Amino acid sequence: MSKRLADCRIAIVGLGLMGASLAMDLVQRKLCREVRGVARRTATVLEAFFAGAVDLATNDLQTGVMGADIVILATPVRTILDMIREIGPSLQPGTLVMDMGSTKREVCAALDTLPPQVQPIGGHPMTGKETAGFQAAEPNLYVNATWVLTPLPRTQPESIALATELVEAVGAWPIVLPPARHDELVATISHLPYLLAGALVHTAADMAARDATVWDLAAGGFRDTSRVAASDTQMFLDILMTNRVAVLDQVDRFMLHLTDLRARLAAGDEDALRQKLAHSQATRKAWTPRR
Amino acid sequence: MSKRLADCRIAIVGLGLMGASLAMDLVQRKLCREVRGVARRTATVLEAFFAGAVDLATNDLQTGVMGADIVILATPVRTILDMIREIGPSLQPGTLVMDMGSTKREVCAALDTLPPQVQPIGGHPMTGKETAGFQAAEPNLYVNATWVLTPLPRTQPESIALATELVEAVGAWPIVLPPARHDELVATISHLPYLLAGALVHTAADMAARDATVWDLAAGGFRDTSRVAASDTQMFLDILMTNRVAVLDQVDRFMLHLTDLRARLAAGDEDALRQKLAHSQATRKAWTPRR
Repeated sequence: MSKRLADCRIAIVGLGLMGASLAMDLVQRKLCREVRGVARRTATVLEAFFAGAVDLATNDLQTGVMGADIVILATPVRTILDMIREIGPSLQPGTLVMDMGSTKREVCAALDTLPPQVQPIGGHPMTGKETAGFQAAEPNLYVNATWVLTPLPRTQPESIALATELVEAVGAWPIVLPPARHDELVATISHLPYLLAGALVHTAADMAARDATVWDLAAGGFRDTSRVAASDTQMFLDILMTNRVAVLDQVDRFMLHLTDLRARLAAGDEDALRQKLAHSQATRKAWTPRR
Repeated sequence: MSKRLADCRIAIVGLGLMGASLAMDLVQRKLCREVRGVARRTATVLEAFFAGAVDLATNDLQTGVMGADIVILATPVRTILDMIREIGPSLQPGTLVMDMGSTKREVCAALDTLPPQVQPIGGHPMTGKETAGFQAAEPNLYVNATWVLTPLPRTQPESIALATELVEAVGAWPIVLPPARHDELVATISHLPYLLAGALVHTAADMAARDATVWDLAAGGFRDTSRVAASDTQMFLDILMTNRVAVLDQVDRFMLHLTDLRARLAAGDEDALRQKLAHSQATRKAWTPRR
């Protein structure tokens, strides 16, 4: 018998940007029976509860997940890995355990160690934001976002359906992918851009050490290209350390392209430079962000 | 006797994003006596005139600049270089010739070849936008933008004052810099980001050739990091070809930082990686864009 979202008690573990925004949507739109929030810091527990972001709140992981129909792990990736090892004994049979972590290979391997009566599925909503924490949370964060689901071989169709219902209920677009494929793809469009932004900021800081006027000249181009460098460092360390091979591979591929552009410019070969830049211009213009 | 902006007939050559936006501000705020627009394409001449963006319009360069008190060259850099060579004989004594080009060393060298009775000054408003052309023009584009002025040794204080009055009249912040210094600084915060965005789009296109799902996963991080890759290719070719040495230098410095980040990740040296990424995070957060 398959569960409906409306009947579910949902425990969201981690009340940062991702978890708290999801909780707000579930509570405000009355999409399920109950939303519990679990946060490490007592201040966050109190803040989330009194803001009405959750129906119940606790800083005790076991209490939070006990009796829940859906458990959603919404912390940085390596904290998710730790929690998966801890929660197994507290879960009731049939519980759907999902996560919102930014890499999926290691998370799905860990999810597969959960007791057999539990239903695991990986998840990752693609919502780019450089801010973090409960303060940054907002309703409707997931509207029009792509939300990747990475089922395990043991994940039953009803569980995929329930996860899909949740994703669609908050306005996002589900895409089902194998975990390793997900990690390769996000290495290209999320993890690589983060490293580029970091290296760019270091390059600008080097210039600023000679002439701080550089910060007055920096405008929209620099602002946008470097934005993700301001992201939470710990969150991205977790991402990079759990997706090293794919990220290194994409850095190398990027370096080939930058080296190629550099060579065309150094040679003063304007036609060759135009050809390559016109291609990236056309490609970028042809792509329309969902939001 | 120094001129006031209110008494000036201003000829703006090039009615793309930069030139037409400036013309709109001057006309709508009645900041000067007359605004003439010069565009190569007759369609643009008519469009600008009937939209009320200029008081007069022509596609004849000599007619446009004749009798003007201020001539503002607002085309891509190498077109500016060509026009400087052409307009000399049509300028009346005392005319202020300014440009809005994105590099300043070659432009200022060309400006210095104008007849001695003309007053040249280089200029570059820092307004990042990936759109181009008259259609993209808008009033108030320069509000709170930094606007670099690069006077020549022969530029008189009254001419710097008049250029400053113009810049401030449209809401921008003037900064006076030597041309070579300007070019080094913008190589870091504008020309390098453009090449990074181009190489990033090529990297994503490589991945898309294997799995087009990458475009569905790309979200805010990729959107912003790659945005400037959609910029006008010819405009940026002019920039790159007239600022090669400084751009190559900044690409090399960027590569050192990216290679360093890559090495720390490849070694799995999390503390070293954290240190470098926390530094760029703090630097990026400490910088506040003017707008």
